[in-house]
This record gives sequence, C-alpha cells and structure tokens, in this order.
Amino acid sequence: MPLDPARTVAELRELRELTEDENGAQRVAWTDTWEQAREWLRGKVAGTRAEEDVDAAGNQWFTLRGRSDRALLIGGHIDSVPNGGWLDGSLNVVAGVEVLRRIAEEGTPELTIRLVNWADEEGARFGRSLFGSSAAAGSMADQDELRSRVDAGGTALPDAVAAHGVELEAHSQLGSAAAYLELHIEQGPVLESLDLPLGVVLGTFGVERHSIIFRGQAAHAGSTPMDQRRDALAGASRLELEIREIAKRTGGGAVCTMGGVVTKPGIVTSVVETAECLLDQRHLDAAALASMLEEAKRASERIAQEENIEVEWQRIWNIQPILFDDALIDLADEAIRETAGTSHRLPSGPLHDAAEVARAGVPTVMLFVQSLRGLSHTKLEDTRAEHLELAVQALDRLATKTLARLSK
Amino acid sequence: MPLDPARTVAELRELRELTEDENGAQRVAWTDTWEQAREWLRGKVAGTRAEEDVDAAGNQWFTLRGRSDRALLIGGHIDSVPNGGWLDGSLNVVAGVEVLRRIAEEGTPELTIRLVNWADEEGARFGRSLFGSSAAAGSMADQDELRSRVDAGGTALPDAVAAHGVELEAHSQLGSAAAYLELHIEQGPVLESLDLPLGVVLGTFGVERHSIIFRGQAAHAGSTPMDQRRDALAGASRLELEIREIAKRTGGGAVCTMGGVVTKPGIVTSVVETAECLLDQRHLDAAALASMLEEAKRASERIAQEENIEVEWQRIWNIQPILFDDALIDLADEAIRETAGTSHRLPSGPLHDAAEVARAGVPTVMLFVQSLRGLSHTKLEDTRAEHLELAVQALDRLATKTLARLSK
Repeated sequence: MPLDPARTVAELRELRELTEDENGAQRVAWTDTWEQAREWLRGKVAGTRAEEDVDAAGNQWFTLRGRSDRALLIGGHIDSVPNGGWLDGSLNVVAGVEVLRRIAEEGTPELTIRLVNWADEEGARFGRSLFGSSAAAGSMADQDELRSRVDAGGTALPDAVAAHGVELEAHSQLGSAAAYLELHIEQGPVLESLDLPLGVVLGTFGVERHSIIFRGQAAHAGSTPMDQRRDALAGASRLELEIREIAKRTGGGAVCTMGGVVTKPGIVTSVVETAECLLDQRHLDAAALASMLEEAKRASERIAQEENIEVEWQRIWNIQPILFDDALIDLADEAIRETAGTSHRLPSGPLHDAAEVARAGVPTVMLFVQSLRGLSHTKLEDTRAEHLELAVQALDRLATKTLARLSK
Repeated sequence: MPLDPARTVAELRELRELTEDENGAQRVAWTDTWEQAREWLRGKVAGTRAEEDVDAAGNQWFTLRGRSDRALLIGGHIDSVPNGGWLDGSLNVVAGVEVLRRIAEEGTPELTIRLVNWADEEGARFGRSLFGSSAAAGSMADQDELRSRVDAGGTALPDAVAAHGVELEAHSQLGSAAAYLELHIEQGPVLESLDLPLGVVLGTFGVERHSIIFRGQAAHAGSTPMDQRRDALAGASRLELEIREIAKRTGGGAVCTMGGVVTKPGIVTSVVETAECLLDQRHLDAAALASMLEEAKRASERIAQEENIEVEWQRIWNIQPILFDDALIDLADEAIRETAGTSHRLPSGPLHDAAEVARAGVPTVMLFVQSLRGLSHTKLEDTRAEHLELAVQALDRLATKTLARLSK
C-alpha cells in the first residue's frame, strides 16, 4: 500500500472529533483526554510491526526494527494547550504514522525507524515546555525546581506524572539516533504571505527575554507643568518604538516585541511613576541577538537620561539559537521542491522539541506547512487540506532521502 | 487683638494631631473623624460672634452679621482624602477662622462675613468631588445618579449623608454672596520652582478626559515578522509622545497626560492586541482645550492608519475652564505683593470648591501658597511655616481690600 496523505487528513479529523470540545482541542498533557489520544495513536500504529514503549519521561516510542540499530527519528507531540488547535503537534505524529506505514510495508528498512510522541511539549500544566524531549535529551538540568512545581489545582508535578507511570529522572534516549525529522504547522504568517505551502526550517531563534522598569515620579496631571515631569511612560513608549528600529536595522528575520506595559499608579489624574515593560528579542544568529540586546540596553539608558527617569533591567529567561543540520536542510529543500515546486528557508520563532534534539547533537531538521492567518493555540488554527497532504508527501520524501544518505 | 498668623499654624498642627494616624490625615467626609474635625472647628469659631448653621448639603456655615446682608464668603474644606496631608482643605478654613476673628474684633463689619466649611470636597467616599459646594451653588444636576452611588462598604450615599442630617436637595446658598475668597496649597511645583511663597489663581483648568483604545492583532512574538504586525502598543506609544508635543505647541500652561496604559493580552510572547490609554488634557482657555483635543484625535487617527490598527475614543468626563474675577485677581495680586514682595499669576490644575462658586456667578478668586515638592494627597504634603503665615496675612489683606471695594 503506497503513501496515502488523504488518510492523514482523515485521521487528524478523527482525532479532532475525539479530543475537541466547543472551545478547541483539550489534549493537555497528563489528562484523561491526552491518555485517550495516546491510546488512539497506539491503535493507528498497531497495523505496522512497530513496538511501543513508554520511557521514564512519558514519551511514547514506536520502534520499527531495521537492519541497523542506528535510528531515524520522526517526532511530534499529541498534547495541545487548553482550548488549542487541531494541528499543533498532532500533525507531526499522525503524518509520522503514515510514513511509518509506508516504510513498514516495504519490508525491513536499512535503519531502525522510531516514531516518538513527546510528552508535554506545551508545558500547559506546569509551565515547563519541551518536557519529554528535554528529559530524553538529558538536558533537563532544572529537576529540583521541577519537583516543586504545582498545577492550578494544587497537584505537584511529580505526583501528576507518577499517575501516568512517569518519573523525572533524566536519561538519554538519543544514543542511537542518526537523524531527527519533525513536521509542524508554521504558527506564523510567512508562508501564507509568500503563497507557499511548505518551508524548511533553519533552526530555532535564540531568545532574550527581559523585564525593564522605568521609574519616574508620580505627579498631579493638572498641576505639574510639562517641563517638570518625570514620566516613566515616556520611557516605555520611546523604547517600544526604538526596539522596532533595532529589529529593522539588524535584519535577518530579527524580531523585537514589547508584549506588555504595566503602569503605576495608572490613574488618569497622575503622571506615570513606574512603567514595567516586557521585552522579547529573537534572532537565529547568536551575535546578532547579543547585539540587539546591547542596543536596546543602550537605548533605554539614553532615554532614561533624556527623560530624567531611571531604568532597571532584569532577565526573565534566555536561550541560545539552535541551528539545524546543513545537510538535512538541503535534503528538506529538495523534498519540498519535488513536492510543491518551490521551497523557502525560514527560522522558527517558537521553540520545538526538535531544538532539544538538535541541542543533544542529533542531526535535525524541521518542515513547516502553511498556517492560515498565522493563527495557533486557538481553535481557529487551520491549514488547507491540500497543504496538509503536500506536507505528508514532503515528510515522506525527506525520510526516504535521509535514509538513503544514512545508509551510504 | 490683631491678626495672629502663627496661631493658624499652631491650630493646623493641633488639627493634624487630632485627625492624623501613621498613614496621614483621615478626615474623610461622612466619617467620625470628619465630624470630630467639624466639632473642633466649631470650638475655634466659638470665641467670635459668628453663628453656625449646617445646610441641607452638610456644609458648615459660620455667619458674622454685618450692616448689610450682602456677604463676603471665605471658604475651604476640612475633609481630606484617606491617608491625606495636613493642609489640603484645612488651611483654608483655619486661616479663615483667623480672618473672621480679626474682623469680629474690630466691631460690626460693613458686609456680612461667612466662613464656609464645604462638605466632601474630595469625593473620597462616593467619587463625587465638590459635593457640598455643588449643592450650595445649585449646580448638582446629577442627583438621580448620586442617589444610586454606594461606598466601598456598600452603604448608599443618601443613607450615609442622612446619618449626618444631610439631604440631597440642591438649593442655592449663594443668593446674598458678593464675593468668594479661597486660600489653598498649590499642590504643584510652580511656586517652589520660582522660589515664591504665594500666587494668585486665574481660574481652574478646563479638563477633557478620555479613554482611547487602540486595537491591533495578537500575534506570536517569535513567528510574526516585524512588517506583518498590527501592534496596538505602538499606537499608544506614539500617541503618548505626540500629546507632549501638542501641549508644548499649545503653550499657555497646557498639560496633557497619559496616566495609564492597559495592554492585552499583555504577555511577553505576544504582540499587543489592545492598548487602552487614559488621556487627560487641561487648559485655562476653552478654545485652546478644544483644539488640543482635536489635535490628539487627529494624531491618533493618523497613527492608527500608519500602524494598520484601529482607534476608538470614549469621553470619561469633561469640564469647561472656569475663570476667576478680574477685579478680584487684581486685588489678590496687590495683597500678595504687599505681603511677600512679588506675586505670580497661575492657573489651577486641580479643581476647587471656588470653581463651583464662580460658576454660580459669584465673583471669586483664590490664593495659592507654595507646596514643597508639589506633593499633595499624601502624608508627605508640606508647606514651610513662614509661608503659611504669609498666606494668612495675604488672605486677610485680600479680605480687607475686597470689603473696601464692596462697601464703596
């Protein structure tokens, strides 16, 4: 039986039916609905010879033994955010099932093929995303901190995962991995704006995330002349406009976002005393990212001086850019061109399990398929059926090319 | 006994002792502490021949009959905001007692002299400021709305004021008023920055107060290229910077304030979808104020268009500028120059009971005394004792000049 991309679309709709309510997908990790989805996936793989095992981090592995123990991994995550979309994560695993079927059908493959359904990619319950892939990659360095996390209902993370037979011990599952492939919806507007179905992902952005507090002086809005004000909101406003210029100057896909400002006292009769800004900067190039951060800091200090206010920076979180494998990027490009005529290379703004796998040293690449209106993490998330079918074909072609390359 | 300005300072300290806790003054209208302060004031006036009566709005009147029923009014308010300062409001009534004593001492005055302690100037409990003076001026047009107000403890305004013998019927107390004088701390930094103790107030600013909502599109901070964003915060930021230019261009003491911005979703990983701004614009000239509002509206629409976002305005509140009496302004200028050598004319940013009295057609003027660091509505509010004494002298001189002018 040859590859049947239409079946993938039908199965995704079946999963949607099973796990969606009126607010969207509810396949939140460590819930009953999530377990139902895993059970459903188990049923789909059953027709192949792949053996299932669940590792200590809760990742669900389906292994089709090949002539070599060296393994080609195809991965995704069936978990969703609460009120999520039908494709984020699940596309990867369901398309992977179709590729697995096609390969199994053709006999014993040269390499071992492993389909992995990573546990809790979204971090929806405990705020730790890439949970399963981090554990499998042995990079979950913050386990003590994890043990103390509780969900909104007060259940501790270790207790919640133990109910699913999961322990927190980190250990590498990636020893035999020769390559890792992941297909995902873009969750952004780039491919749609270029009118392209598919793109190859160069890597995941490095991220610098900071809280920036401007401090001025509260003063009566009626009795304080303009030239005697120390307005913290002026600092935040000027920085918001400045970071856009920094991103433009930097180029190369640079993005800078001020995601929120909290003003205090925040009343109509007072000049703003403190303005606390959330800044997110991303770039695929580590040096460019460092330079954007430095530029934003210098700008904030110049603005503070000119406005006679103070500024203070606090890092919330950061991560280095993670670059995918050059040779696999080329193969992915070929696979896409053969499938859809035109390819496009783009970075990934959001993080993905692939970043953890790549960080662990496994040659990795991702494919993006167009997202309608760039929407994700909402029930409005969607991709055209014909694009989903092209994506399954491209993933399958990429798997074939990768196997051929690894078998040389 | 001649005027004794030092006694006023001593009495203000006595009142402070009586009504202040570790967080500041607690003379909030319609509370026991407020009633205590009124009782204390009654005791201070007792030595004069002035007769007390409390009107239907809760205003406390002390009337020293003169040869004519035409009356010179001197007014202030003993109520404070919660955790307020020792001078806001109380300076006016306590200085007024001293002037009343001096006039009473000299025999029967030509005109009747009335010292009024307005009820609930601050509107601290029900959010309706200038309560007593509005009622007395017959301008409390919104009584039905007032009846439905409740305080934070759930007590309805009519019940709360009834406990103090007060009804909401508006009726004019100002029929016989020939002039109204009010002394107040500046609550702003202007006199201090000019190193002057006293100033004469030209009137109270007109105010335009609006809520302005910019609406863009929430989008992933990592996956949305800069040129595809519809960032509501960019709209708010550009308007915040624009209103400062509008105020500068307009001049004449114009002030424009963005007192707060609320951003939604307001998370570090998303472009801001809505930014709700609070705008306050003030000017002493009605045409200039209208023009500032128009300029801000036009700017917001131009910004919205350039940023590909939407903007919506909603008026929160407005009031026309209220100009004080030219002849009384000249007399006040004279009184200040004779007392302190130099005078200065300035508008009032905050509203005062004097605005209600002026609006009712009574020739009105106010004196400002320097506020240290411009602070008010906090226990840090302060004015140097020597400036308070000069203020009592200037008020007394102004009363004498006004009586002389009215007796012609």
